[in-house]
Amino acid sequence: MKKLINDPQKVVDESVEGFGLAHADLVAVHTDPIFISRAGGAVQGKVGLVSGGGSGHEPLHGGYVGRGMLDAAVPGAVFTSPTPDAIIPATQAADGGAGVVHIVKNYTGDVLNFETAGEMCAAEGIEVRTVLVNDDVAVEDSLYTAGRRGVAGTVLVEKIAGAAAERGDSLDAVEAVGNRVVANVRSMGLALTPCTVPHAGKPSFELAEDEIEIGIGIHGEPGRHRVGLEPADALTEHLLTPVVEDLGIGSGEKALLFVNGMGGTPLSELYIVYRRAAQLLADRGVTVERSLVGNYITSLEMQGCSVTVLRLDDELTELWDAPVHTPALRWGA
Amino acid sequence: MKKLINDPQKVVDESVEGFGLAHADLVAVHTDPIFISRAGGAVQGKVGLVSGGGSGHEPLHGGYVGRGMLDAAVPGAVFTSPTPDAIIPATQAADGGAGVVHIVKNYTGDVLNFETAGEMCAAEGIEVRTVLVNDDVAVEDSLYTAGRRGVAGTVLVEKIAGAAAERGDSLDAVEAVGNRVVANVRSMGLALTPCTVPHAGKPSFELAEDEIEIGIGIHGEPGRHRVGLEPADALTEHLLTPVVEDLGIGSGEKALLFVNGMGGTPLSELYIVYRRAAQLLADRGVTVERSLVGNYITSLEMQGCSVTVLRLDDELTELWDAPVHTPALRWGA
Repeated sequence: MKKLINDPQKVVDESVEGFGLAHADLVAVHTDPIFISRAGGAVQGKVGLVSGGGSGHEPLHGGYVGRGMLDAAVPGAVFTSPTPDAIIPATQAADGGAGVVHIVKNYTGDVLNFETAGEMCAAEGIEVRTVLVNDDVAVEDSLYTAGRRGVAGTVLVEKIAGAAAERGDSLDAVEAVGNRVVANVRSMGLALTPCTVPHAGKPSFELAEDEIEIGIGIHGEPGRHRVGLEPADALTEHLLTPVVEDLGIGSGEKALLFVNGMGGTPLSELYIVYRRAAQLLADRGVTVERSLVGNYITSLEMQGCSVTVLRLDDELTELWDAPVHTPALRWGA
Repeated sequence: MKKLINDPQKVVDESVEGFGLAHADLVAVHTDPIFISRAGGAVQGKVGLVSGGGSGHEPLHGGYVGRGMLDAAVPGAVFTSPTPDAIIPATQAADGGAGVVHIVKNYTGDVLNFETAGEMCAAEGIEVRTVLVNDDVAVEDSLYTAGRRGVAGTVLVEKIAGAAAERGDSLDAVEAVGNRVVANVRSMGLALTPCTVPHAGKPSFELAEDEIEIGIGIHGEPGRHRVGLEPADALTEHLLTPVVEDLGIGSGEKALLFVNGMGGTPLSELYIVYRRAAQLLADRGVTVERSLVGNYITSLEMQGCSVTVLRLDDELTELWDAPVHTPALRWGA
């Protein structure tokens, strides 16, 4: 196993430590248990936003802590749900007295642990709501999920709900806009190669030299089917078509198109995928008004990508455009 | 060869087309010959900045076209210098009447082609200066270079010279600040894996499962030596020590620390490298005042990283902090 790591058991600790050193102006890193909060602490009177999940998907979630997005993030071990004992102090750190929204990707462990933590925080007087992200159209139920998995749409939920919280929306309103993003976003991914979890030391699954997995999960969970070495345009169509059809977006509507890299794919290839996805949306009469291309929710060094479409309206567009200042997403600030 | 491409001969054209679609608010993409310019055209009275080089290093250079950075970028074929016939119209597109600075990485082909293009533009009345970037301390002379190679320091030259041009500095002053960055920046990289140029169809070099190449070039050119599977902390020291010693930076000085991913390495691993590099600089009494961590100058899907240190003074810090709005680097705007 060739990786830029020291001890496989210390990957998350050391990575988060480096992250804290690099972005000390924006975030505070807490250890034992590990969580990340805004450098300035909770914003009094603002709804707090907390997300978390297994590590290995960086920059998700720690990279999105900062003004206009999250108040705290809880990284679990690699591909492993964070535990309530870390989610609780993160929620407390995010609490500005107006309640806290947990943004949770739909994996059984994540859902359970955030729920437990939310109940404990409620018992201490923090009102906690949950926005559950389940944008992956590839499969119903999966290795770690009942129902659909939460994948790249999570980044958009965090950005847009974060902007709503930042402008002073109430707990009800932030929860509602988060759920509105969930209702209007769909994703699907593919993998060219597997990835290797450091403490496992071997690839999480196998793909032959001439196989590509369509509908892959962000932990390498099986997708819909495997295809051969098809051209990027055909592969893009395998992703975009189910996304668009499930979302039911069509002529005259506006969209944000997000092509996400799984960690090991060159940016130039993501733009080749973006090109075809944009053409296919144009063919359907959908106007792409906003774009995002890059490694925003990854699976370690996996080669592959996902395509996400968010149906935009004026409010979602305005919240997307609102200033954001985090280690991994920044504009207008 | 597993890649998200269609025709290996059309990788650059299709990728740049997708790039143009995704960032139409910021850039204009020109074809035949291919170059990228600011969407709004040249800024009258401002010194123009142009860079370019072989493709495969994305987001360099096209991702840095926009306010506060480049006016135009010229992508060659993958790992192949752009030709004068593309550099000339890019220079013309960047010309706002105050002269143009070419930022050129020190590779023989790049130097020759930018020089030829510069002479042709001068004959047409555009005053052209060249800032030559040669920050790689790994080796003197190399596969494609006489003298040192230009690598990750290029991103910092483009940002800082771009900010100087944007605030209205003269051609002499922009050239001077660019050269001042070159004088104060050093880099060195390593590779865990090779990469595959699409039209070649096979890896550009070979590395055994237990070998890491220290001092790798961004096209896979040989470095200083190979080591075994050492921990990230030891590998980081192999990079940082020569960088710091060549730069001669020491106690009481300020620095920007830049850990760059080669394209296929997880962000979490880059932060593990950052952590150790920051510790080593602190041990030497150097204060890290600014940081940059991510994939900013890549080698397709190569796994590996580079470490760059820029000696900061008040002016360079101010220019680094100045607003920038490009597809790949954005703040304050």
